[in-house]
Amino acid sequence: MLGGWKGGERMVKVKIPESHPRRESLLYRDKIVEGLDEGIVSKEGLIAHGRGEAFDYLLGEKTVEEALDAEKAGVAAMLLGRSSAISVNGNTAALAPEKLIELSELLDAPLEVNLFYKSEERVERIIAHLKKHGASRVLGRKGDAKLPIESERAKVDSDGIYRADVVLVALEDGDRTEALEKMGKSVVAIDLNPLSRTAQKAAISIIDELSRALDNMIDMARFMRDLSADELNSVLESYDNDRILKSTLEKIAKGLMMLGLESR
Amino acid sequence: MLGGWKGGERMVKVKIPESHPRRESLLYRDKIVEGLDEGIVSKEGLIAHGRGEAFDYLLGEKTVEEALDAEKAGVAAMLLGRSSAISVNGNTAALAPEKLIELSELLDAPLEVNLFYKSEERVERIIAHLKKHGASRVLGRKGDAKLPIESERAKVDSDGIYRADVVLVALEDGDRTEALEKMGKSVVAIDLNPLSRTAQKAAISIIDELSRALDNMIDMARFMRDLSADELNSVLESYDNDRILKSTLEKIAKGLMMLGLESR
Repeated sequence: MLGGWKGGERMVKVKIPESHPRRESLLYRDKIVEGLDEGIVSKEGLIAHGRGEAFDYLLGEKTVEEALDAEKAGVAAMLLGRSSAISVNGNTAALAPEKLIELSELLDAPLEVNLFYKSEERVERIIAHLKKHGASRVLGRKGDAKLPIESERAKVDSDGIYRADVVLVALEDGDRTEALEKMGKSVVAIDLNPLSRTAQKAAISIIDELSRALDNMIDMARFMRDLSADELNSVLESYDNDRILKSTLEKIAKGLMMLGLESR
Repeated sequence: MLGGWKGGERMVKVKIPESHPRRESLLYRDKIVEGLDEGIVSKEGLIAHGRGEAFDYLLGEKTVEEALDAEKAGVAAMLLGRSSAISVNGNTAALAPEKLIELSELLDAPLEVNLFYKSEERVERIIAHLKKHGASRVLGRKGDAKLPIESERAKVDSDGIYRADVVLVALEDGDRTEALEKMGKSVVAIDLNPLSRTAQKAAISIIDELSRALDNMIDMARFMRDLSADELNSVLESYDNDRILKSTLEKIAKGLMMLGLESR
């Protein structure tokens, strides 16, 4: 210690809970690193995963009530849609291939590989990866239609995302989310950052970790696919995405304030 | 849009400011990816960088007042110390090699390479990288002393971190920060997460992005190295790390609440 300075005695006494979820986070991290090694996840994808980790930490690494509401609305929207699709990128394919496939089957919504950092080789590897995990049909090779945005990211398959009226995206970029909405589609976005352009532009913003969100949505889909169109519509009528985002932000903020106050 | 549902009309109107800092963040990201390609940064380091990006986003990607106070106290502590050292890992070496070297010279504090995911080859590559950027002396090869923690991460050089009484760490792990403090050293930590164990255990917690923090500390060191021991001590006497951490948390929380309120 430095002479005359009591700095070392002023220990901050905030406890960071060591609970099961932390082990989940290490498991997800391993899957992402494995994904990089297998050429499925890009380097940028690793950095994006870290960003998600930070936001999930702030959420308490659990599904908050607001996310449950959004997940339910997301399932309702996809069941009601004339045609739905699930957009898959490297991170999502690496983290939860089987859950994506199961949800795709329950909602009759095809999986389409759609990458921010695109390379045909990586698209092929992701398709192979999904097939290895049980997928029968995976779109994304054709790129024969275009979203109203610039560059490579505009290409989509005409029989997948392009014709869908409801699209489930996860860990997606804001430009594409905004473009899909502008085309009149409804975007259901899974994103851990409530402030991201994706979360802000989507019709339904699920602020939850991908695997947890998919688990919840699979359970909900099994039950909700037997509901009538009226019942599903009433789920959507009472859903307010603004309120969900606002409430989630306030929850995170209050959590931080509480930790700030506890530190004395 | 789905029939009967007005979800798409409820656009959330939060503005995320597009300002110069966002370009900085892309520059840092490029350096980290380059670092991975050069075998300096580990895959885990990429994920950690992402976590930092999220926290920096919440800070507004600028040096907050609390961080300036901490940077000033950190420089004072290192100037007052009988012996200081600067711990360097892959991420810090990739992001700001020249600033590390300049600060090391101004404070007469040797650079020591100290890795969480250790490999002798990576230590060598980081040393070579720093030398390429102008470093004359870089420690970290010997590992002939041990910190009071388990495993590979305990090894340090006897003439560097081990004998220092003030150690500057950046993007460091909580175990080692705590171990250094337990040994009676004062840790000055640069970490974007005010809730991390590193930030919580350090004597001085600089909640700021690495390059910004080093820039500030270089400017401060140039001026402060001409101050007397009494003047430096009075900087430390009036410094309260608990207050800095608490205040930073409240600042982030308030920022989130404001964004939540603005969204209607």
